[in-house]
Amino acid sequence: MTLWFTGLSGSGKSTLAQYLAPKLMNLGKKVEVLDGDEVRENLSKGLGFSKEDRDTNIRRIGYVANLLARNGVVAITAAISPYREVRRECRQHAQADFVEIFVQCPLEVVEERDTKGLYKKARAGIIKNFTGISDPYEDPESPEVVVDTSNESIEQSAEKILAYLRERGLVPATANASA
Amino acid sequence: MTLWFTGLSGSGKSTLAQYLAPKLMNLGKKVEVLDGDEVRENLSKGLGFSKEDRDTNIRRIGYVANLLARNGVVAITAAISPYREVRRECRQHAQADFVEIFVQCPLEVVEERDTKGLYKKARAGIIKNFTGISDPYEDPESPEVVVDTSNESIEQSAEKILAYLRERGLVPATANASA
Repeated sequence: MTLWFTGLSGSGKSTLAQYLAPKLMNLGKKVEVLDGDEVRENLSKGLGFSKEDRDTNIRRIGYVANLLARNGVVAITAAISPYREVRRECRQHAQADFVEIFVQCPLEVVEERDTKGLYKKARAGIIKNFTGISDPYEDPESPEVVVDTSNESIEQSAEKILAYLRERGLVPATANASA
Repeated sequence: MTLWFTGLSGSGKSTLAQYLAPKLMNLGKKVEVLDGDEVRENLSKGLGFSKEDRDTNIRRIGYVANLLARNGVVAITAAISPYREVRRECRQHAQADFVEIFVQCPLEVVEERDTKGLYKKARAGIIKNFTGISDPYEDPESPEVVVDTSNESIEQSAEKILAYLRERGLVPATANASA
């Protein structure tokens, strides 16, 4: 299956993905995290942040996630993926379960966190086309899971996701299977 | 593991890859064929055929093959991959077995075949940077397997590869395991 995280920069997508990965491994799953930055480096060097380039980048992530997912690997993608249409396209092309997880967090909060100092640069106009500031973010219309990292601990958000996966029968109902 | 086919356009890489895939599945393996043309479409649209662009394309194939291979999927790559150095780089980064298969076929023979009509266009100068005509192909120095599609049937070439994999213990020694 694919766990498709989407949300603003700094909302906690990567942190949550990295937190979930070992939990899913403990449940007997093979897991790959396709992090936004890492994938840009390996698959999309040279692409910028125009809508067209972002869409190309997201399509590539979708293609690789699907290759993994249809072979039984849990592919966790953690890229902003701001556009609804291309997320829908990835879902349509998916040949295994596709779980969209909206990592919600108000702009004020991620901007206050500003973990990588990017929002400051975006506000100063040093970075152009920055999602949430000078580029749109389109909320998912019907994500399978919504977590709110401004109000939940990482454990709570992860548990919400795991509860959904258990309910759908995508992971075993028992807690740690073997480890 | 990764089965890395390399050879001239028209040498028979894709045909051999497609022929091998179901045989490996019959041996209980999960298999993905990363065909040169398909991967260009999905991961490298916009890249051309300069050395730099070719290397970037091959690095992407190597990255994806490795993601699959380290999760137990047999990743079969079937791109020309003409440059020795970047093939070596893919091998070095591989976190699972890496089997380089040189699909040998003299230029005269692939040019005579000219399945896609590309050699004619390359000779006429309509296609630039065409491997074997106006762009180099660097033979592998120590490939794990060499097949010669000008002298062998597809069955013979496939059997050579399977024999090597059996010998290395990478596939079961018995013929069709379950199917």
